Amino acid sequence: MKMPTQEEPLVVVGAGLAGSLLSLYLARRGYETAVYESRADSREAGFVGGRSINLALSTRGLTALARVGMHERVLRECIPMHGRMIHDLAGNTQLQPYGKPGQFINSVSRQSLNEILMDAADEHDHIHFKFERKLKDLELEDGTPVFDHKGETERVPTRFLFGADGAYSAVRQAMMRSGRFDFSQSYLSHGYKELHIPPASDGGWQLYKNALHIWPRRDFMLIALPNLDGSFTVTLFLAWKGEGTSFEALETTEDVEHFFQTHFPDARALMPDLANDFFENPTGSLVTIRCAPYHSADQVLLVGDAAHAVVPFYGQGMNAAFEDCRILDEMLEMYAPDWGLLAQAFSKSRKPNADAIADLALYNYLEMRSKVADPLFLAKKRADTALHDVLDDGWMPLYSMVTFSNIPYAEVVERAQRQDQILKIGATAVAASVAAGLAFALSRR
Amino acid sequence: MKMPTQEEPLVVVGAGLAGSLLSLYLARRGYETAVYESRADSREAGFVGGRSINLALSTRGLTALARVGMHERVLRECIPMHGRMIHDLAGNTQLQPYGKPGQFINSVSRQSLNEILMDAADEHDHIHFKFERKLKDLELEDGTPVFDHKGETERVPTRFLFGADGAYSAVRQAMMRSGRFDFSQSYLSHGYKELHIPPASDGGWQLYKNALHIWPRRDFMLIALPNLDGSFTVTLFLAWKGEGTSFEALETTEDVEHFFQTHFPDARALMPDLANDFFENPTGSLVTIRCAPYHSADQVLLVGDAAHAVVPFYGQGMNAAFEDCRILDEMLEMYAPDWGLLAQAFSKSRKPNADAIADLALYNYLEMRSKVADPLFLAKKRADTALHDVLDDGWMPLYSMVTFSNIPYAEVVERAQRQDQILKIGATAVAASVAAGLAFALSRR
Repeated sequence: MKMPTQEEPLVVVGAGLAGSLLSLYLARRGYETAVYESRADSREAGFVGGRSINLALSTRGLTALARVGMHERVLRECIPMHGRMIHDLAGNTQLQPYGKPGQFINSVSRQSLNEILMDAADEHDHIHFKFERKLKDLELEDGTPVFDHKGETERVPTRFLFGADGAYSAVRQAMMRSGRFDFSQSYLSHGYKELHIPPASDGGWQLYKNALHIWPRRDFMLIALPNLDGSFTVTLFLAWKGEGTSFEALETTEDVEHFFQTHFPDARALMPDLANDFFENPTGSLVTIRCAPYHSADQVLLVGDAAHAVVPFYGQGMNAAFEDCRILDEMLEMYAPDWGLLAQAFSKSRKPNADAIADLALYNYLEMRSKVADPLFLAKKRADTALHDVLDDGWMPLYSMVTFSNIPYAEVVERAQRQDQILKIGATAVAASVAAGLAFALSRR
Repeated sequence: MKMPTQEEPLVVVGAGLAGSLLSLYLARRGYETAVYESRADSREAGFVGGRSINLALSTRGLTALARVGMHERVLRECIPMHGRMIHDLAGNTQLQPYGKPGQFINSVSRQSLNEILMDAADEHDHIHFKFERKLKDLELEDGTPVFDHKGETERVPTRFLFGADGAYSAVRQAMMRSGRFDFSQSYLSHGYKELHIPPASDGGWQLYKNALHIWPRRDFMLIALPNLDGSFTVTLFLAWKGEGTSFEALETTEDVEHFFQTHFPDARALMPDLANDFFENPTGSLVTIRCAPYHSADQVLLVGDAAHAVVPFYGQGMNAAFEDCRILDEMLEMYAPDWGLLAQAFSKSRKPNADAIADLALYNYLEMRSKVADPLFLAKKRADTALHDVLDDGWMPLYSMVTFSNIPYAEVVERAQRQDQILKIGATAVAASVAAGLAFALSRR
């Protein structure tokens, strides 16, 4: 097996979060790595307004960043969120902690996180960024990509190619034309719209800074994540169309005003540009992507969203992509430089975990928009938390395993099912004791 | 709503089985219909050797053919198959009837069936075939297709467009680029290989003519369907690769000979060109295609394999495609000429049925290659058949509902589940009576 060289480097397609971090991992092992990105360098282009998507960085992502020494730098750009702040219709709020005291997730801007990783990669001799290169074609037999660069065609000899080009991956598109590649894309009937709560006049935060704010309204919901500048990025999740409330039905400024006044009066009061934002910003769609295998022959491997895009309701998309990089690196330890074997092993081990987090993320939408306001759900949560307190890592609530551990997602699901089974038996035992007690009391009347 | 005209006809993409039959349905209602096909006219090209795929035409397909007066013409090209002829390893055979006496499915060649339909369509003034037109682009907003015809580009104004271009549909490909189109392609780990049993020296059939022959071997199987010329089209279904027997493992003539001598000695004796056929013919893959919705805006609708390709193990792919045409025609009665409403209604009503037959077809592979040789399966089959005899259409075995009725597939699945539930209760009751009888007998000892 040949090592990557400057003439035949490893190629990473996509300089987004997954691609940038992956290049850091590869370069650390001394591999020549070229990162090809279809867009211009966002750092040179400057911040171009529009949407500022927020992410929630948690343990898996931080673990992966730490391995390449990036976690401290990144954490400086983060705002800790200790729990969900639930806003009811009357304007009451309730903070539900995410984990034990001291456990939190981190609100961070996609743009600034990406730029930190690119800056770090730029300092490596082994990493070469190539911007404005759009993948035109990919020769799967030897993994040779062909890029379009301002009208010119560039064919790049490649040792091995990583597709880190996101949910609408062009690398994956090429793999789909090959034989027997399983693929599915599945859209939610709900879409999302980014909105904005500006900083207070004194520059502070208009809502509690250290929480992820949720306005759960059963059929739809609003959330808000804090930014460093005192603002909040707000997102409305709502059905595209259909009976009752939907994006389709919100046609005029009056419709939008009425909708927010009715369902989110407290949030409405904090959004002076609501109608403008609503009609200026596009409505985004929510897709789950699954495929198998993640690799093609011995030459190409998908990572991150390109392999397994998930809906955002568990805040795990980026974390799962970063975890991909860490796992890949651990496998390099075993398989390098046999890239084919590496690709095969990664695909096999990662697929069930990606499927698990995809399912969890879909389920969590239901939980976020309705269950967090449900007393039964809260009772179970209390039992879960109490057991976690007593048994420590011997009993972890599902959310904690996903968010505050590096346990493989598929194993998380299995453990959660086992724990639920036990909770159910417990609940039945309690009910049986109560019934027995009642029967005994009645028999003595 | 405007009627289709010669300047703005209905366009059907694909002159295969679904496209040809659909054009007959549309023309019968007086609609101008243009059928665009990427390949040359198979009737002019003559029979070009290679694979002769056989199909099993049953009630759904025949019902759809009858509505346009085509069933008698088609049945003249068919060979009735009254049951499955099971071949065990020792060469013993057992005929398992498909239904009641007089019920059978029909072996027919894809090529001859397609040509009959195209010939009938050619006689219609309203139908115009355009061959060697490959879909290059499809403008989804108004459904305008752009074809490549020998290097020339043809843009075709269209009233409404039907995508009947098969499992690898170019129309569907265009729809995938639009927003929020759910899609999945899923491949079996098994592939197939066409083989051949020639006619006997006297021109007759070397196996019993009126059956579908099966050599079930649990992990793989061989089947054979009769042709009019005395030959049988044989298909081997086998894992692509992996431990034990697989296509990958059959590398040499000796490997193939040994495999067939070991597992199918009686069939082997009837295939003089076995090794040649095996290495000349390509190995085919088995894909299930699902998507939703089947329509795009008010301009485009997928039918047949383009919307819902299934694996061949229930012999229902073509039958489901023909049923699409019948259902579409019934909906035209209600919705024409509102093509948008028609497309929406068709997609909504047809999707659950297509999903049901896709699942049934996947499941039936297991049944065909192993359960048909399983005594428990046969016992259940006997109970099913006995109840069907007594209760007539009040109790129909699953296979009969799929094959010998026009009951929507999703309803078939529901009825089968209900019947299975009853059979289970019955079996429990019998077991309970036996146990009670035994207990009583013991108590009197």
